[in-house]
Amino acid sequence: MKKYNEMKKYVDVDTLKYMLYDVHNLEGLLKRERFQDHDKESLDMFLDSSKDFADKELFPFIKEMDEKPAHYKDGTVYVHDQVKTMMHKGGELGIISAPFDYEDGGMQIPLVVYTAATYILDAANNHLPGYAGLTQGAAELIIHFANKELNETYVPNMLSGQWGGTMCLTEPQAGSSLSDIVTKAKPTSDGYYKLSGQKIFISGGDNQFSENIVHLVLARVEGAPKGTKGISLFVVPKNRPDSSGSLISNDITTVADFQKLGQRGYCTTHLGFGDADDCRGWLVGDENQGLKYMFLMMNAARIGVGRGASAIASAAYYASLQYANERPQGRKLTRDGKKDPNENQSLIIEHPDVRRMLLLQKAVVEGSMSLVLRAAKYYDLELTATSDEEKSKYNTLLEMIIPVVKTYPSEAGSYAVNNGLQVLGGYGFCSDFILQQYYRDIRICAIYEGTTGIQSQDLLGRKITMGNGSGLALLSVEILKTIKESKSHKSLQPYAAELSNKLELTQKILESLMPHALKGDYERYLADASIFMEFFSLIIISWSWLEIATKAQENLNTSEASLSDDFYLSKIETMKYFYDYELPKTLGHAAILMNPSTVTIKKEKEYIN
Amino acid sequence: MKKYNEMKKYVDVDTLKYMLYDVHNLEGLLKRERFQDHDKESLDMFLDSSKDFADKELFPFIKEMDEKPAHYKDGTVYVHDQVKTMMHKGGELGIISAPFDYEDGGMQIPLVVYTAATYILDAANNHLPGYAGLTQGAAELIIHFANKELNETYVPNMLSGQWGGTMCLTEPQAGSSLSDIVTKAKPTSDGYYKLSGQKIFISGGDNQFSENIVHLVLARVEGAPKGTKGISLFVVPKNRPDSSGSLISNDITTVADFQKLGQRGYCTTHLGFGDADDCRGWLVGDENQGLKYMFLMMNAARIGVGRGASAIASAAYYASLQYANERPQGRKLTRDGKKDPNENQSLIIEHPDVRRMLLLQKAVVEGSMSLVLRAAKYYDLELTATSDEEKSKYNTLLEMIIPVVKTYPSEAGSYAVNNGLQVLGGYGFCSDFILQQYYRDIRICAIYEGTTGIQSQDLLGRKITMGNGSGLALLSVEILKTIKESKSHKSLQPYAAELSNKLELTQKILESLMPHALKGDYERYLADASIFMEFFSLIIISWSWLEIATKAQENLNTSEASLSDDFYLSKIETMKYFYDYELPKTLGHAAILMNPSTVTIKKEKEYIN
Repeated sequence: MKKYNEMKKYVDVDTLKYMLYDVHNLEGLLKRERFQDHDKESLDMFLDSSKDFADKELFPFIKEMDEKPAHYKDGTVYVHDQVKTMMHKGGELGIISAPFDYEDGGMQIPLVVYTAATYILDAANNHLPGYAGLTQGAAELIIHFANKELNETYVPNMLSGQWGGTMCLTEPQAGSSLSDIVTKAKPTSDGYYKLSGQKIFISGGDNQFSENIVHLVLARVEGAPKGTKGISLFVVPKNRPDSSGSLISNDITTVADFQKLGQRGYCTTHLGFGDADDCRGWLVGDENQGLKYMFLMMNAARIGVGRGASAIASAAYYASLQYANERPQGRKLTRDGKKDPNENQSLIIEHPDVRRMLLLQKAVVEGSMSLVLRAAKYYDLELTATSDEEKSKYNTLLEMIIPVVKTYPSEAGSYAVNNGLQVLGGYGFCSDFILQQYYRDIRICAIYEGTTGIQSQDLLGRKITMGNGSGLALLSVEILKTIKESKSHKSLQPYAAELSNKLELTQKILESLMPHALKGDYERYLADASIFMEFFSLIIISWSWLEIATKAQENLNTSEASLSDDFYLSKIETMKYFYDYELPKTLGHAAILMNPSTVTIKKEKEYIN
Repeated sequence: MKKYNEMKKYVDVDTLKYMLYDVHNLEGLLKRERFQDHDKESLDMFLDSSKDFADKELFPFIKEMDEKPAHYKDGTVYVHDQVKTMMHKGGELGIISAPFDYEDGGMQIPLVVYTAATYILDAANNHLPGYAGLTQGAAELIIHFANKELNETYVPNMLSGQWGGTMCLTEPQAGSSLSDIVTKAKPTSDGYYKLSGQKIFISGGDNQFSENIVHLVLARVEGAPKGTKGISLFVVPKNRPDSSGSLISNDITTVADFQKLGQRGYCTTHLGFGDADDCRGWLVGDENQGLKYMFLMMNAARIGVGRGASAIASAAYYASLQYANERPQGRKLTRDGKKDPNENQSLIIEHPDVRRMLLLQKAVVEGSMSLVLRAAKYYDLELTATSDEEKSKYNTLLEMIIPVVKTYPSEAGSYAVNNGLQVLGGYGFCSDFILQQYYRDIRICAIYEGTTGIQSQDLLGRKITMGNGSGLALLSVEILKTIKESKSHKSLQPYAAELSNKLELTQKILESLMPHALKGDYERYLADASIFMEFFSLIIISWSWLEIATKAQENLNTSEASLSDDFYLSKIETMKYFYDYELPKTLGHAAILMNPSTVTIKKEKEYIN
């Protein structure tokens, strides 16, 4: 019965490297010009130093950050001391700058490697990496779309971690509906705009350490069109440089810090802009293009959410696995179905139902880990494509999977952590043990950066229909490649056949849904989008697992594999778990999706009461 | 955007009464001799006074009890002041004594009505009713199995709520495995035993108000057989009466109060017995029969857990429904699949995906409400049976469904609350709103009184095989009755047919599993018991929903129905939701259960790592 402070493992770095090098062929990617300075040795060093940083500076504080949450006092948000370490030491390590171009102060690390490194940090302590992650996202927007002056003024201090950064989208009255944003930006003759309005749920929006925080704010210039077409993007620093270069207050008020179910060390602020009519913002790019800029960054943000969710589930998995390996309880059944009290107690990992809960977690954690790395790899391949066709291909593949990348790790991760908690029985519910915290922490992921409902609308409404289905066709080609490769191993053929069947089932479902869209009944077409998301996610993760198992089988068949046979066998067994216990759920989804009627669309009389 | 303190509704009393009178034919039950003094009017008064008590004394404190949790200080557990009110005012109302015999100080209220009344209390504030519920359970054990002296000494003060009561089963080294209990009881020549040992997870184990707490403790008399056959039951009061009748300390130490994920106002203590070798316990009934006595009470305890879980899900449902009815966000899609920003925002209850999350909750809440009332009705019918045959019938029916009664409301309830939280988006994650608390509170229910894994083993291992399948046959007769009745309404016939199909599928699954048991491979037979539980639960709840919808249709067809057409129509629509969205999940379960192989049984080499 280990409590939190005796827990040792939160991520399996061997698995992470196996995903990078074996499953996702990182060495192939490194041949691209952009990455020519990197090799396995240097990237392993980056990963290992991230792990070392996480071991020393992140993991030891995970529970304390929950117990002493970020809080608001006298106009300031107070966060844990370790936030300073995250930003400054993390900045030195390159946690903020690593994927950027050399000329912007970066290291041109592939996003797939950066994603692996930050996966380690998230798994160690999910309350901390967000401070760096948002700073990176804000810097990226400036680098890509703002003018030279804004770049020079803000980016260097952000990449070093001296200044923080945020994304300010949500407003109290608008929530997920960005077309209803009302924060105002009034042009002045001095080049800047005067901002006024309220933003809520601003992660990392304030803290007692940062000399400055650079907010990237969506607002509406006076007279702009209604809806999403009238939204502009502004750089709005907490403190602005005056003519001498000294920082002076920019009239941004911290109104409150939301207290939350989880991620309590990661502050979530309510900010007021321009209460004294002296809040200056500088336009990024052109007016009314703000949402477009923001959404160009959104794929990376959504990979980040999926990564974080998978990482929390990883930490929860290893905590429950350790418990299961140390806790004796109950006995094996004898041949007459009874238990003999003279026998020693079994370790709970020997009970099939506990093993099911552990395999479920492992299947979700590693399946989603491979998925987020796949997304990052597509991003890298798009970025470094040498032809328009290639660029378009990887862009399309990324667009196709991104709603799943955001959603599956969040939803299935939450389900995995729930099972991890259950492995501990009553102790799982007790605050002395960490599982209950991970159960709370991971719950936000299905809400961040577009809820599951919104991702599902994106998947079925935009991505599946994109180019008259050409995106799905392109993705299917990739899946079929894996199926073909796996078939060269006899033991994998039944699984390959199963995945082929599910691809056919996907077509049948879409044929059954499309008539609604074709006759303009989008409400009906999208009514079960969340069910389609569950269905499609299982297909995508089954693809990942088939790929993982194929590489494992190849490694088993060669004498040159770097890891033990047990390592590879465990991947194949976990693949089987996924195909035997998770993939069959698609049968239920198919029945729901192909049902011609649905009770969820509002009729004349309200019946939900 | 209402916060907790503006929330109004936590349970629908009309639905509760509809379940009692229409669905479960309470007036039929009242014809039995035991209940002859009760009629609809008097029982409605009991329910209404429970609702009034809950409105005034329970619901207003739900959030405060979470924020100021029970805690340990200097040897005592301090709980919220309202615990005193719960016990004393609740005691006056009959919340502890109501179902007992007149001669034992009770009111002979049917358990089904008592369950409805306590459902209201649980929905109002799930941190409080447990104090009364455990006192009742402990009193029940004394009444049924202890001698006259123990009855006279303890029961009256317990029924009035002056003294509390607990059940002390779990020990640190034993967990769910009661055969490993080591608390010792040493006989003395003075009639009592000297107790020594440690008990953990003792709900309601201590508080600053109770003059006394009467612990019902499982312990092993020196020299008793190993395993479950050597466990005896003792009355062990916190304070024992001395020869003059004054209370003196009985050497029970409160070691700690576990801090928890949820139900933080309901204390969970660690108790030490006999540190000074002066802890006296009095044997209940005969030696070595303790587990048998305890388990005779277990069905009622498991109904209580299912009831509490369903009630928490009820409170969460109404909180999310209120939000969905008040929160504008987003817009309906136009015919070209776009949104028009000039349109007013919709209320979120108009979006099909939000409606799905609400219907899901309503289907789980009311389906599980009907299930727990069914279990209590079987209990009443068994208790008042006029022949051995009838007694045996209702005992069997109760035994068959009890693992589902404990598990389905807990697991599906947690899933329902999860969806309720999601309805609120970011606000669902914020502590100002109540959803995040219900999400935490309900999580214990899948652990209390035998985890889901243990219930599943009970269902498939004991109940399904009971009497060579005669229990399942008896239950099927009841389900077929409902199917037959529903068929007289044409609109319900497709649902009746669907449920018939699922009964046939159940048989097929069991035919596929039984060979494992017949050849003595119980580990394999039970390996997927938790999946079978999910499957079987959906059949049982579909049965409840068909019954609910049949009664609703009958009410719609008559001019004498007491509630509005809208009320009955909403029941029928929710039934459809359950059949269209929940029942299809059984297809996946069937595929898992009929798969000849399973990856969850441990092989020679460990592959979970």
